[in-house]
Amino acid sequence: MDATSLRAANAALRSTSPLVHCLTNTVVQTITANALLAVGAAPAMVDEPAEAGEFAAVASAVLVNVGTVHQRTAEAMRVAARAAGQAGTPWVLDPVAVGGLTFRTGLAVDLVGMSPTVVRGNASEVLALAGAGKGGRGVESVDGPEEALEAAGELARRTGAVVAVSGPVDVVTDGHRVVRVGGGSVLLTRTTGAGCALGGLVAAYVAAAGDALTGTVAAHAHVALAAEAAAATAAGPGTFAALWLDALDAVDGDALTRAQVSW
Amino acid sequence: MDATSLRAANAALRSTSPLVHCLTNTVVQTITANALLAVGAAPAMVDEPAEAGEFAAVASAVLVNVGTVHQRTAEAMRVAARAAGQAGTPWVLDPVAVGGLTFRTGLAVDLVGMSPTVVRGNASEVLALAGAGKGGRGVESVDGPEEALEAAGELARRTGAVVAVSGPVDVVTDGHRVVRVGGGSVLLTRTTGAGCALGGLVAAYVAAAGDALTGTVAAHAHVALAAEAAAATAAGPGTFAALWLDALDAVDGDALTRAQVSW
Amino acid sequence: MDATSLRAANAALRSTSPLVHCLTNTVVQTITANALLAVGAAPAMVDEPAEAGEFAAVASAVLVNVGTVHQRTAEAMRVAARAAGQAGTPWVLDPVAVGGLTFRTGLAVDLVGMSPTVVRGNASEVLALAGAGKGGRGVESVDGPEEALEAAGELARRTGAVVAVSGPVDVVTDGHRVVRVGGGSVLLTRTTGAGCALGGLVAAYVAAAGDALTGTVAAHAHVALAAEAAAATAAGPGTFAALWLDALDAVDGDALTRAQVSW
Repeated sequence: MDATSLRAANAALRSTSPLVHCLTNTVVQTITANALLAVGAAPAMVDEPAEAGEFAAVASAVLVNVGTVHQRTAEAMRVAARAAGQAGTPWVLDPVAVGGLTFRTGLAVDLVGMSPTVVRGNASEVLALAGAGKGGRGVESVDGPEEALEAAGELARRTGAVVAVSGPVDVVTDGHRVVRVGGGSVLLTRTTGAGCALGGLVAAYVAAAGDALTGTVAAHAHVALAAEAAAATAAGPGTFAALWLDALDAVDGDALTRAQVSW
Repeated sequence: MDATSLRAANAALRSTSPLVHCLTNTVVQTITANALLAVGAAPAMVDEPAEAGEFAAVASAVLVNVGTVHQRTAEAMRVAARAAGQAGTPWVLDPVAVGGLTFRTGLAVDLVGMSPTVVRGNASEVLALAGAGKGGRGVESVDGPEEALEAAGELARRTGAVVAVSGPVDVVTDGHRVVRVGGGSVLLTRTTGAGCALGGLVAAYVAAAGDALTGTVAAHAHVALAAEAAAATAAGPGTFAALWLDALDAVDGDALTRAQVSW
Repeated sequence: MDATSLRAANAALRSTSPLVHCLTNTVVQTITANALLAVGAAPAMVDEPAEAGEFAAVASAVLVNVGTVHQRTAEAMRVAARAAGQAGTPWVLDPVAVGGLTFRTGLAVDLVGMSPTVVRGNASEVLALAGAGKGGRGVESVDGPEEALEAAGELARRTGAVVAVSGPVDVVTDGHRVVRVGGGSVLLTRTTGAGCALGGLVAAYVAAAGDALTGTVAAHAHVALAAEAAAATAAGPGTFAALWLDALDAVDGDALTRAQVSW
């Protein structure tokens, strides 16, 4: 696995346009859908329990993000995760604010037990999910990715998932290999939903690449490169968000090979 | 009916500022509200069943979009559609992803039986609603508007609704006349909610114009002209979304008379 | 209290980065979160009743906005308001469209009885909440702030809350003093959620300033200054929204001292 695998993952994404079923929080649905459209995927949000399993079974990938979860959407997430598992469809768990809040922490523990393909979060969330921390402050992390590396590796080995920890330098591991993705921009942390949209891109890339580690790294590299390009011309966090979507559209497979990835 | 009727519809919209009650999916609420504000209408989203009928009865028009519908909002939609019908208020049905998912398809069939003023969707959705297709892939259409023309005409004659099918060239029919609207931009399909916002504009224009066919055509022409203007300067899908709202604001009645409309 | 207190409030906001728990309507969650991030606060949206009290108890401030309230979120709002009260945490009530709709009006009356720190709305909403009006048309006000001044003062004295009435010139009162904030831009009224985001900024500033009147005035001045800056270069309502976020980020304590505030 090297930089050329990222080019291949991007080519697969652009040619297959994976349908990503997103069960995600209501704050970030729009930017998640727009980010998926920008990279060439097809988003759809369906979170009625009566439909979630039916739709997950036909989607290319599923994203489960517990940011604004409540009783109904928790049930839809369980249904969708089960259907994805039965269909062999890759699915991504984003454990937003897990650790600090009881209801979602219980749900996330259950979901982790249902064999997600990828777990993507910040360091505090991954530490909490691995049973090694007490969670951050809402969506903010009080720890850095390197502090969560050991817990991420254990979580990966225990669950079989690829675990990605976002930060100034992202860490991605399958429990054996560790890949780091640098670059990006601090403006990503000042745009609500950029991290959550990354979860959607991980789902799309994993479906396209057919390999969870490659797809997860490709998504992180794509987001980081686009953020660098957008930050170069943005006048602040508002214009950054629009320019980041433009840049997600513009990043191609060749660009991905030049991302700051340490294999 | 000709191009001057579009100018009159726009003048009526700007002078009456219709209040559009939107029961729509959570992914597109923001862009729908902003698009309505941009053209001079007043949006309001109310989807608690205990309030939906009360509000629909005082609104100028109602939009029902089933994109992220669930049990509660389905009930609110039934209540609002009933109240709109009793008050003689025009209402628009957008059957997002109908055909492929059981729960919403049943709901949409019920809603179609409640005499919507306009049905607006993509070809796959209209084919499914007319009983002639099996639905698309989430919000994407696998068919083109011309393939849905016959089904649209039948649906219009059976229900009394104007039926609009979105695509590269939009088709609008009342079951007798067929009007086509060209122009626009492919970037509309890369901006989540542009089609759903169009549904809101149809509601606003129909309320203002007092004629469902004229109002529906005017809304489609307005959206297409704004998309062309935005695409001319956008650097990608992110900047396009903001520029499209600017252009929705800028398009006036004179511009509408120059839209690519084939009566 | 004078202009220098606004500089101090901004310094406190930037240095403490208050965590604002937002129970707000789904149309405006994104712009509210982005506006909070732009001024240096940390937003989080949690509206499951099982979590709302737990989270309100650890947040720096709470925003309760009833724009798209329904049974579940109404319960979460009651729980969060109660928890904020018990913890001595400041909380802001935004009574969107109260007066015209029965369900939310009953809820808002209950919430007002739970001692909000600040009530922020348009004139029609404040008149309705004070029992002196019948509400506006959805989120639009049919009255001006000065017409609501007496009612705002009475509401403030009765409840102990600071009451802010938005309009071309905003009026803020604690029932004894009246402060007016001018400036701003009409484009704020053409951007969905700008007023609701202001409610979030009021929560953040009140938490940081430690004084409800100062914090509320500072938030209004910050929003108005940013709107003026954005309007100077915006080409329409779409670009305005992005530029307004940029400007929220750029406004600093020195700028605040030059806002159009009449103490």
